[in-house]
Amino acid sequence: MMQSSPPLGLSPRLRSTPFTRKVEESGVSSYTVYNHMLLPTVFESLEADYTHLKNAVQIWDVSCERQIEVTGPDADWLVQMLTPRDLSNIRIGKCYYVPMVDENGGMLNDPVLLKLDEDRYWFSIADSDLIYWIKGLAYGLKLDVKVKEPDVSPLAIQGPKSGDLMAKIVGDEINDLPFFNFKRFSFNSLDLLIARSGYSKQTGFEIYVEDFKLGETIWDTLFEAGANFDVRAGCPNLIERIEAGLLSYGNDMTNEHTPHQSGLSKFCDTKKAIKCVGRDALLDEISTGPWRQIRFLEISGKPLSPCRNSWEIRNNNVFVGKVTSAVWSPDFQTNAAIGMIHKDHWEPGTRLKVETSDGPRDLVIRQGPLVE
Amino acid sequence: MMQSSPPLGLSPRLRSTPFTRKVEESGVSSYTVYNHMLLPTVFESLEADYTHLKNAVQIWDVSCERQIEVTGPDADWLVQMLTPRDLSNIRIGKCYYVPMVDENGGMLNDPVLLKLDEDRYWFSIADSDLIYWIKGLAYGLKLDVKVKEPDVSPLAIQGPKSGDLMAKIVGDEINDLPFFNFKRFSFNSLDLLIARSGYSKQTGFEIYVEDFKLGETIWDTLFEAGANFDVRAGCPNLIERIEAGLLSYGNDMTNEHTPHQSGLSKFCDTKKAIKCVGRDALLDEISTGPWRQIRFLEISGKPLSPCRNSWEIRNNNVFVGKVTSAVWSPDFQTNAAIGMIHKDHWEPGTRLKVETSDGPRDLVIRQGPLVE
Repeated sequence: MMQSSPPLGLSPRLRSTPFTRKVEESGVSSYTVYNHMLLPTVFESLEADYTHLKNAVQIWDVSCERQIEVTGPDADWLVQMLTPRDLSNIRIGKCYYVPMVDENGGMLNDPVLLKLDEDRYWFSIADSDLIYWIKGLAYGLKLDVKVKEPDVSPLAIQGPKSGDLMAKIVGDEINDLPFFNFKRFSFNSLDLLIARSGYSKQTGFEIYVEDFKLGETIWDTLFEAGANFDVRAGCPNLIERIEAGLLSYGNDMTNEHTPHQSGLSKFCDTKKAIKCVGRDALLDEISTGPWRQIRFLEISGKPLSPCRNSWEIRNNNVFVGKVTSAVWSPDFQTNAAIGMIHKDHWEPGTRLKVETSDGPRDLVIRQGPLVE
Repeated sequence: MMQSSPPLGLSPRLRSTPFTRKVEESGVSSYTVYNHMLLPTVFESLEADYTHLKNAVQIWDVSCERQIEVTGPDADWLVQMLTPRDLSNIRIGKCYYVPMVDENGGMLNDPVLLKLDEDRYWFSIADSDLIYWIKGLAYGLKLDVKVKEPDVSPLAIQGPKSGDLMAKIVGDEINDLPFFNFKRFSFNSLDLLIARSGYSKQTGFEIYVEDFKLGETIWDTLFEAGANFDVRAGCPNLIERIEAGLLSYGNDMTNEHTPHQSGLSKFCDTKKAIKCVGRDALLDEISTGPWRQIRFLEISGKPLSPCRNSWEIRNNNVFVGKVTSAVWSPDFQTNAAIGMIHKDHWEPGTRLKVETSDGPRDLVIRQGPLVE
């Protein structure tokens, strides 16, 4: 099998973003496709991008985090149907990580939910056409809601200097915004919805750019303001996210896994979430406990080749799980990994074998990710 | 903007297929991502692949045409809800091209429907997570159906020698199978579901491989049997499909377009399809006629660079449509294209301007595609 990155044939079906031209001028060197849209994966190199992210500030085109807007009198009802997280007391201005499940408790997505107003929500989604599930339910149940994908493209500002950069643009009050909160800030004549959030552990912000045509102006503004902070174009970094234990929907869990199997029980209030369509299935699983679960792992030996397909984990030659993400961590000098492990083998310290694309290796179950 | 094909970062989220190893051994040189899965786009070169496809026989990994299986007592009811095509008299063993629409008449997909049995259907889908729409409707309406993605990966055999190749494997009776019909054929101890279909105009077949683990065996069998026919690995070819006027969902039409706008009225029986959820919206459109529609086009001048984003079409500097697919046709020595055109400008012979990535060009509306 190819280990390197084959060429990606471009076509309008793989949507460009408001920032694509800027991203390419900034030297993107590799893309993936996410929600039918281009998502950069590497600029200089995975390692150089990682070191820079941990020391400075990067601007990320995460337009592929598409928004699904749900509005109308039945919006509260519908939104609670979608998740086992209890949403009865959520507040305008806060962000909520919400596992989305079908009637079997299988995860359909793991978006961040923004309550914009009474009866108005955005789901900032991972890689699946979740809108069709929501529209199908709404139609079938004759709910009084509108469900659409608005013209919104998130742009992330990530890294330890992200607060300094943002303060230069919208003022120091940005740094009073607590983690996973959002608020509108003025910038020139614009009114920007900004959240303190992002797919890294380096602190950061996400601007929800509400007009495709504004993309390049906002991009340029951030680069001008960030010149003294060594601002660069970046993207979600595989090394940083695995070190930090950030899960990737579609890689680490899919619609074959429940939130409990995905280690997301703390985001579930299944008994209270009585409207959730997957509630019965999830209550069944809670009563017995999940039979497999995501664990953070270390794999022995030299830096591993990329994990392009999941790798089988075995104990005495019996299949007990799989590695779903893996990468060499320069800072920790180990192969950090994430995997789904059978309950008989998931205790921290358990030693197992994994069949990597570089051959068999030893693997150990960790208590948590390298960076907590 | 980049015109060439940037590298694609691989990860388990971009699913491999039963044939990926064989495809890579056969020299795939470019991929796209389709239904979260790898789809080859080029082997030798677009032009060399095209010439070979028109003269010999190719094996295509089209596993990304995922199947959605709908079974159960309410399957007939549900399936008719999804499309304005009248399905009341469809027969087991036939394939049906069915535009799928939401409550606004917007196209969610354009699959091929196979009726496998009473109360058992497969949708062989284009690029969208259509399963979530179907599952959402079924849950909301409390229908007695099961909806799932079975372990089925289509493998296409396309080209003028495809009949000869297939006859060597399953016998001459394969050539009695009419176009858009399917049937089970024996091969060694296997029972293969084979349709006379495929995304080219060169004649061909699709084997619906019903077990991931059988993929490589079937691939090897086809290559052994095809040695005398110059069989090669191939893939849907951009030149051949535009010449033939085969539409690409996500490129030529999206959920913003109705079947009528997409030129698919002949697959709609909207008055008879009383269960179709988009019926009212489509009847409205029928009464006035669509305000825009897909047309086949020719663009003047030298061979064009790839169309990675749609190109604006103008008449006296007023926007009147866009080109959504375009490619140089070596056989016809012209730039063949497909686009969505405003009704005031869609008459065959109309001359317009298009802003391509190589600058402005003249464009003419054709009566139909280059190959009918």
